[in-house]
Amino acid sequence: MSESNDFDDWSPQGPVEELAESSCWVLLESSSVGRLAVSSYGQPQIFPVDFYARRPDILFRTSAGTKLRELTANGHVAFEVDHVGEGDSWSIVINGFARVVNDPAEVAIADRAPLPSWVPTAPYVYVRITPSAIRGRRFVRTLFAPRTGA
Amino acid sequence: MSESNDFDDWSPQGPVEELAESSCWVLLESSSVGRLAVSSYGQPQIFPVDFYARRPDILFRTSAGTKLRELTANGHVAFEVDHVGEGDSWSIVINGFARVVNDPAEVAIADRAPLPSWVPTAPYVYVRITPSAIRGRRFVRTLFAPRTGA
Repeated sequence: MSESNDFDDWSPQGPVEELAESSCWVLLESSSVGRLAVSSYGQPQIFPVDFYARRPDILFRTSAGTKLRELTANGHVAFEVDHVGEGDSWSIVINGFARVVNDPAEVAIADRAPLPSWVPTAPYVYVRITPSAIRGRRFVRTLFAPRTGA
Repeated sequence: MSESNDFDDWSPQGPVEELAESSCWVLLESSSVGRLAVSSYGQPQIFPVDFYARRPDILFRTSAGTKLRELTANGHVAFEVDHVGEGDSWSIVINGFARVVNDPAEVAIADRAPLPSWVPTAPYVYVRITPSAIRGRRFVRTLFAPRTGA
């Protein structure tokens, strides 16, 4: 179980290991698909995004649409990346602030990020998430109980 | 591209196929890990959850903690399930309302759901999400462009 008494665990019944921030970044920097949560008038929304992580922040592309509108209205976001394996799984949740990258020098740097190289069919912008908090947990999936019988 | 002019696609540059609601449920019913987004005072939060889907709703377990507190304060949630494959990927996003299952008859039904059978170490409750909207999209990852040159 985690060291806190706040049972917020993925599977609240399984053992959980809290990951150090440096371990979180190692996992983030080797991942490429995450989920962005935004909040608009008390309504949460989730968008899967292809991203590029390089400590200390997260970069992704988006084009005109709900995601960009909601980000512009409320830059407070949560961002989640996880991996479900046979023996164990992990999940990293970032809370932070997202903003559109406008500065030409920053755009030039973003252009060199190894984001998925789709053929663009719509104009896009880069969005950068600056984390204010990062939490990673590893879940060990070994404890099974029979569902029937005693 | 999707049939709308609102380019909200996962990878906005790639071709996207909108999935029928019945196809979404087939995928949901064969999946077991999703991400729940809640909103608290304009701050989104994401939690990975093990879930069980049976049309028309989604069931998961949780124990005391932030997730349950935020769900109780604001039951409007978003729930996302995705799969990233070699050739294509899909993502389903549900918007809906979450409530704790209190009725003993409903709890008895939930007890028979094939949720992960961890040994519980903390008291838990069942939470049921009733969708108000469901959207599924399939993304074909075939169009690559060179990043350099012309």
